[in-house]
Amino acid sequence: MVHFATALAALAAALAPVVSAAGNFTYTRINKDDAVLLVVDHQIGLFQLVRDFEPDEYRNNVLAHAAIGKVFGLPTILTTSAETGPNGPLPKEIVEMHPDAAFIKRNGEVDAWDSADFRKAVRATGKKQVIIGGITTDVCTTFLALSLVQEGYTVFANVDASGAMSKRTADDANERMRAAGVHVLSSFAVVCDLMRDWRNTPGSTQILPFFDKYLAAYGYLARGHAAAVSRGTILPGESE
Amino acid sequence: MVHFATALAALAAALAPVVSAAGNFTYTRINKDDAVLLVVDHQIGLFQLVRDFEPDEYRNNVLAHAAIGKVFGLPTILTTSAETGPNGPLPKEIVEMHPDAAFIKRNGEVDAWDSADFRKAVRATGKKQVIIGGITTDVCTTFLALSLVQEGYTVFANVDASGAMSKRTADDANERMRAAGVHVLSSFAVVCDLMRDWRNTPGSTQILPFFDKYLAAYGYLARGHAAAVSRGTILPGESE
Amino acid sequence: MVHFATALAALAAALAPVVSAAGNFTYTRINKDDAVLLVVDHQIGLFQLVRDFEPDEYRNNVLAHAAIGKVFGLPTILTTSAETGPNGPLPKEIVEMHPDAAFIKRNGEVDAWDSADFRKAVRATGKKQVIIGGITTDVCTTFLALSLVQEGYTVFANVDASGAMSKRTADDANERMRAAGVHVLSSFAVVCDLMRDWRNTPGSTQILPFFDKYLAAYGYLARGHAAAVSRGTILPGESE
Amino acid sequence: MVHFATALAALAAALAPVVSAAGNFTYTRINKDDAVLLVVDHQIGLFQLVRDFEPDEYRNNVLAHAAIGKVFGLPTILTTSAETGPNGPLPKEIVEMHPDAAFIKRNGEVDAWDSADFRKAVRATGKKQVIIGGITTDVCTTFLALSLVQEGYTVFANVDASGAMSKRTADDANERMRAAGVHVLSSFAVVCDLMRDWRNTPGSTQILPFFDKYLAAYGYLARGHAAAVSRGTILPGESE
Amino acid sequence: MVHFATALAALAAALAPVVSAAGNFTYTRINKDDAVLLVVDHQIGLFQLVRDFEPDEYRNNVLAHAAIGKVFGLPTILTTSAETGPNGPLPKEIVEMHPDAAFIKRNGEVDAWDSADFRKAVRATGKKQVIIGGITTDVCTTFLALSLVQEGYTVFANVDASGAMSKRTADDANERMRAAGVHVLSSFAVVCDLMRDWRNTPGSTQILPFFDKYLAAYGYLARGHAAAVSRGTILPGESE
Amino acid sequence: MVHFATALAALAAALAPVVSAAGNFTYTRINKDDAVLLVVDHQIGLFQLVRDFEPDEYRNNVLAHAAIGKVFGLPTILTTSAETGPNGPLPKEIVEMHPDAAFIKRNGEVDAWDSADFRKAVRATGKKQVIIGGITTDVCTTFLALSLVQEGYTVFANVDASGAMSKRTADDANERMRAAGVHVLSSFAVVCDLMRDWRNTPGSTQILPFFDKYLAAYGYLARGHAAAVSRGTILPGESE
Amino acid sequence: MVHFATALAALAAALAPVVSAAGNFTYTRINKDDAVLLVVDHQIGLFQLVRDFEPDEYRNNVLAHAAIGKVFGLPTILTTSAETGPNGPLPKEIVEMHPDAAFIKRNGEVDAWDSADFRKAVRATGKKQVIIGGITTDVCTTFLALSLVQEGYTVFANVDASGAMSKRTADDANERMRAAGVHVLSSFAVVCDLMRDWRNTPGSTQILPFFDKYLAAYGYLARGHAAAVSRGTILPGESE
Amino acid sequence: MVHFATALAALAAALAPVVSAAGNFTYTRINKDDAVLLVVDHQIGLFQLVRDFEPDEYRNNVLAHAAIGKVFGLPTILTTSAETGPNGPLPKEIVEMHPDAAFIKRNGEVDAWDSADFRKAVRATGKKQVIIGGITTDVCTTFLALSLVQEGYTVFANVDASGAMSKRTADDANERMRAAGVHVLSSFAVVCDLMRDWRNTPGSTQILPFFDKYLAAYGYLARGHAAAVSRGTILPGESE
Repeated sequence: MVHFATALAALAAALAPVVSAAGNFTYTRINKDDAVLLVVDHQIGLFQLVRDFEPDEYRNNVLAHAAIGKVFGLPTILTTSAETGPNGPLPKEIVEMHPDAAFIKRNGEVDAWDSADFRKAVRATGKKQVIIGGITTDVCTTFLALSLVQEGYTVFANVDASGAMSKRTADDANERMRAAGVHVLSSFAVVCDLMRDWRNTPGSTQILPFFDKYLAAYGYLARGHAAAVSRGTILPGESE
Repeated sequence: MVHFATALAALAAALAPVVSAAGNFTYTRINKDDAVLLVVDHQIGLFQLVRDFEPDEYRNNVLAHAAIGKVFGLPTILTTSAETGPNGPLPKEIVEMHPDAAFIKRNGEVDAWDSADFRKAVRATGKKQVIIGGITTDVCTTFLALSLVQEGYTVFANVDASGAMSKRTADDANERMRAAGVHVLSSFAVVCDLMRDWRNTPGSTQILPFFDKYLAAYGYLARGHAAAVSRGTILPGESE
Repeated sequence: MVHFATALAALAAALAPVVSAAGNFTYTRINKDDAVLLVVDHQIGLFQLVRDFEPDEYRNNVLAHAAIGKVFGLPTILTTSAETGPNGPLPKEIVEMHPDAAFIKRNGEVDAWDSADFRKAVRATGKKQVIIGGITTDVCTTFLALSLVQEGYTVFANVDASGAMSKRTADDANERMRAAGVHVLSSFAVVCDLMRDWRNTPGSTQILPFFDKYLAAYGYLARGHAAAVSRGTILPGESE
Repeated sequence: MVHFATALAALAAALAPVVSAAGNFTYTRINKDDAVLLVVDHQIGLFQLVRDFEPDEYRNNVLAHAAIGKVFGLPTILTTSAETGPNGPLPKEIVEMHPDAAFIKRNGEVDAWDSADFRKAVRATGKKQVIIGGITTDVCTTFLALSLVQEGYTVFANVDASGAMSKRTADDANERMRAAGVHVLSSFAVVCDLMRDWRNTPGSTQILPFFDKYLAAYGYLARGHAAAVSRGTILPGESE
Repeated sequence: MVHFATALAALAAALAPVVSAAGNFTYTRINKDDAVLLVVDHQIGLFQLVRDFEPDEYRNNVLAHAAIGKVFGLPTILTTSAETGPNGPLPKEIVEMHPDAAFIKRNGEVDAWDSADFRKAVRATGKKQVIIGGITTDVCTTFLALSLVQEGYTVFANVDASGAMSKRTADDANERMRAAGVHVLSSFAVVCDLMRDWRNTPGSTQILPFFDKYLAAYGYLARGHAAAVSRGTILPGESE
Repeated sequence: MVHFATALAALAAALAPVVSAAGNFTYTRINKDDAVLLVVDHQIGLFQLVRDFEPDEYRNNVLAHAAIGKVFGLPTILTTSAETGPNGPLPKEIVEMHPDAAFIKRNGEVDAWDSADFRKAVRATGKKQVIIGGITTDVCTTFLALSLVQEGYTVFANVDASGAMSKRTADDANERMRAAGVHVLSSFAVVCDLMRDWRNTPGSTQILPFFDKYLAAYGYLARGHAAAVSRGTILPGESE
Repeated sequence: MVHFATALAALAAALAPVVSAAGNFTYTRINKDDAVLLVVDHQIGLFQLVRDFEPDEYRNNVLAHAAIGKVFGLPTILTTSAETGPNGPLPKEIVEMHPDAAFIKRNGEVDAWDSADFRKAVRATGKKQVIIGGITTDVCTTFLALSLVQEGYTVFANVDASGAMSKRTADDANERMRAAGVHVLSSFAVVCDLMRDWRNTPGSTQILPFFDKYLAAYGYLARGHAAAVSRGTILPGESE
Repeated sequence: MVHFATALAALAAALAPVVSAAGNFTYTRINKDDAVLLVVDHQIGLFQLVRDFEPDEYRNNVLAHAAIGKVFGLPTILTTSAETGPNGPLPKEIVEMHPDAAFIKRNGEVDAWDSADFRKAVRATGKKQVIIGGITTDVCTTFLALSLVQEGYTVFANVDASGAMSKRTADDANERMRAAGVHVLSSFAVVCDLMRDWRNTPGSTQILPFFDKYLAAYGYLARGHAAAVSRGTILPGESE
């Protein structure tokens, strides 16, 4: 009789995630202590292929993505594909921003996870959450993201940091990642979820300067506010 | 042998929602007697960041969202984030519209659910359905919506009342909410589902004036109809 | 021991649709012998609210939707909401096209399924598949579609025949329907699935004239082909 | 001394239009008694090339263009280019609508004005204003329009009736026509300028049915108004 | 010899505007003491035809247009076309805002300038500059604007207050007006040009409340600034 | 007791895919040794209906789709629908590219899977993965894709090779395919997944020329790189 | 008295173009016997900057532009800017297509007209009409076009062959060229104006193959027509 | 007789510019020795109103505009409107970039030319060409540009540096400037016209670093080229 009970218990255990998925929703938040940041093939040659963002806006987004690792102290891994070929090297600003990051220069693998060195670097961080951005969204980001999910990682795809040959291609790739359970979200959401509370460290002291540099809309909002507080005057007719 | 039967019964019970989810669809409608309305971070500073609606259209939508609480007599909760900072205060029209609403001024928590005061205010309503809108869609609305779903609430996200830095960011955030079971729908659908029947109270007597104020297309349609009935004339060549 | 086996059998039966859903995909095709067509609130007042199609294109689509019932001999049900009010009557072309159709004039229910007369009319057809289009997509179409799915119907939403106040609102409504298992598809797909084979009846003999009337792109393609076959000449330099 | 005065007078006369153009603006209105309507290469093969309108919308526009000649009793000229070739014939509805119209079937001339028969047909009308629409905008419409202006005609290009391979191509072609003094305007403006006053003949008696057929937005507005006047009821809460 | 000199002088005089136009540009500014505001056919039925703005945004723009007359004390003339027919009456807010304005209810003339009453009302103001907005842009606004220019008026077309059946139609109509010398500009530009200096009357005292009501983006900017000056606090990390 | 264990084992087996689907994600990659390429109804008449791509871009995409079979040596099946009718024949380039491919000319079946010849041809390849593209996306591609999934095939829909009457129609069709488990992805992703590693065969030696022919952005990037390596010079001020 | 007459004659002569421009419009057509084709900086590096066309579509357009010289036997001049630098060389297909063309490799001049070699090459053709396309539209095309107009050339700018960093930038550049009298038109219009009549040489014999290669929409239309004529069959229900 | 000749000469002289304008086009190029750069109201509060560019892209463009003065050594004038009010101060980066620039802080004048200090500052430069950018395009840029043209300046409006509340508003404002003879062009065109030849000073030595900073697309193109020249390798299958 024992093995019946055992079998049933095994069955119940196997079913737990199904039941959980169907009946309960677990909100997975980004945990800055359990996250690694991946900078995937943001190479200056591939950059030319990106058409779902304006070039200056996209360069800003790519640098912001890399800087998330810096401001939150996340382990960061850089990788490139055949960088002496047409794809070209990473922007030097990123390499200089992360002098100590693992930097895996792949020579042939399209999906970075197919590279033993890359897998080793990711595993070495011991983290279970992965924040990812890359060029192109449908190949370099998606292939890797799907491999990571299969491997058991929780993946957060920073939409603003991945670039594709068209908005349409990016949309389809994002749907493909979502279907695998990847969390597809904005750079702003990534940063806010890592911070959680403006009173934390990193908190407003670190993040407002980050926004001032990489998120002009918020940066100028804060500058305007600071100017008003410190030396603003009320115009006739103006009221709150 | 008894505990086998017990185990099987427990297993069957655990499986019920799965089976139900897969085999039967339950249409969850908004119940005006079980719903609370949340006005989340619709602050005048954050308003500047919103680019998925035109500014005048969006202001109209935000005021309409707040007015839904009024016209249907829903418990309404206001919340802001660091309102003496760049985010700024709520539009005074909203505060004046809801003088008795719980108003939680958060000082650091990005996700309002992280605020004990906010959780308390929501729980105090005793409602199980939550209608939500906020700025920005991807952070303030989504983080809170996901927390609420995890907590067991049924969440209705009013698309027209949430604003994001781009349409693209809003789309991705809405997908994220949908994946968690959030009902993402238009302001018009929220109001019509709350009303159910034009002969109810609130019904056409209350809702037509609401549309006249906040939904110009329908408001002018009704005005034109009223004018035609009361003093219209048929032009030569005109026929039904 | 018997009731264990019984319990297991019941459990297995209960699990069958789950397993089927997850492991096997069943392609549900539209069966012209088991389908009813619903024309929901395509009223001339509500028509003014539709902004996700051009007006002349949308009128064409609405008439085409109604004509699907005609060309395939489907039972067709017409319904309107408060038609002496701002919403206005149905286009007379539709009423004249379906003189014998059940026509339910609702006086208050937003969701047509809340009308006992409407439910009765649908049930009286004895069909299990429902093809639906209405104004607006997010309210009249979606509310009814979700009710129908809950009731056990298989629902096909004709995207081209439903109109919303914006493309964005239509997109969100369609997502909501999809999440409930509604098949959201084009008018062209509805017609082709009903026909299945150009050699059927209705087949090309009936459907080419239908396309000539309601689908200009295909209609003119066919006209051009017919003209070429019957009296075309090859220009110098032209080749296949 | 006489020939000085003569020379000066000639000079002043020659300068008159310059001065007029620069200092005074003359508003040239369409005169239904001095206008001819041209239907240029609206062939069913060329129809496939048009991508600045939706196909069903564009077919409606083309038929409306041809019908303008009918409703205002304008002399109308049809022309096609190599109609037994890929361009195909005119839609039969147009030919049947204008059984007595001059119909010039060109065999090679791209610019219809290069055809002596076409020139003769236009001149035979004795009109000085030309209303034109054709496929494609940048070739068939523009080439002919520029030739007509050079010939001294006042040209009104019906934007809604001309189709191009892209909106961009149409925009550039319209700019080219404008630079030559062509009046580039909507079909609605053409009709309203021809009518001038709703009390004229043709006036509302003829034009409201025309709009009912070809301009769904206005047609349904009028139908809704007529229905409200004749049998509308005011809903509770509704007011003008 | 005298009449030669006379002839030459006349010729030179006649040429002056040409020379001026070609060689010198005169910047025509709106003069609040010489301007009349026209509210043309902003009727609630015609409102349904407008598709180059969102409905709530456009209603806001129309009311703002009418309010320009109020805030700058401009003579204002209202006109409608067949208002007991499908076009419907003006929004009551406009009529109530201008109880003493000349209000010309045309019964047939499409171009308001064809109405003797309307011409009389405009001439009675003694102004030479006209600020205009109407529905639809390509007919009601354009026809009148072109007539006014021909009549010698300087016309400023408020783009935001005129509505058309499509953005494309509005663009073409605006080009047509520009070719006649109409100044086509935004509502914001109209207001700022009327004000000239924030220290004038009307100046910030009157215009900031106007913007607060009709231009949400600027209104909320000013509210945020006022809030910051009166009770703002600098967050850690925030700087000008 | 044996049959209890058996029943449980069967139950557990039946549940395995559910558990797997919910708890574990399996990343299904395209396997060039197990894939067949389908070219579905890319007929020159149907080509005219496609409006979600520019014509020259789409022709390029269609030829690229067919060439994938060539460059990776995949079994390739061509099919057409009523090719002597309006739909027309396949582009001759495709037929010539695949002289030995199975070519099923259907005479009536809309869904190619309804053709016994087509089913036989697909089954004869012995492959379990299908790469598909067709005109139109919502009918020819989707109907077949859903049938293939039901039949147990893993389906990869090449978005760039399927064309629809509008982007909206394509989006809805792609959603429908995704809901059935179809992998909807770009042509670039299909090729990169087939290749896996640039050092494979086919690898860069075969794929760079393929991109040079069918993917101009990458092709010119590579040409520019090659030119720079072989004969480039650094301009003053230029640096990496 | 003589020199008065002379002075007046000179004055009248000087005024002739003014009068002509204002009072008469001269339609300037492209004359294949007086036209030179310029291929300006269509370099593979600069190609990456172009974002107002899709890459594959734009490559097609660029090759089509170069081929116009071939098919009409126009003198053709190629030029590049610093081609060993980042701008890169011309696509080899263009160089090979025009082995005998003047090819001016500029080393510094942005405006090709600033290069004495280039001026010499253009002047050597003895032509007075110039057909131009280049990258980028706002710099390489516009600067040269404006210089050519100043020099007295009649310039035809092939919109489809010039590429800019955004559609907006191209629009502004095209306006700038138009203001200088440049004829801004589509590639299709350039070809049709050069041909004039399908019966000419080059005429349909040469141009249909040209369209088959570079203008897929027309090419497939003609292929479909040819197929229908030679082996088409009428389907039941199909009619002209 | 003398004064006839004199009169004629005067007349001829007066007519010269007309004749020139009509018959001859003069290409006005930007002369770096005769140009002044204006930075108009690029204030951080007004920045929030700009919706015709993405915020990060627009900030980049504004800084690039200011930097043009730096790299070409142009006299530069900064001006703001009521900077202690809602409009806010200039970005500090601009003020720090131009420590010695005239900086006119206006307290009320909307049109900067209405400020005597501003007029004085512009005149003090002694330049006749003005390069301008500002917020908002339709008010701050346009009003000033029109005043400058009237004053006799040649004005170049840098499109990329001016921001408006919508693309539509910017388009209309740009048309208004063009009608007055303003040269409306891209930032890239401004820089290239100032440079003229890559071998000049400033030339590639100064401008490539400028593009590297402010024009990512070109910057990365050049970086990729430099990397390829210095350490690139040709991949198998890659060719020029």
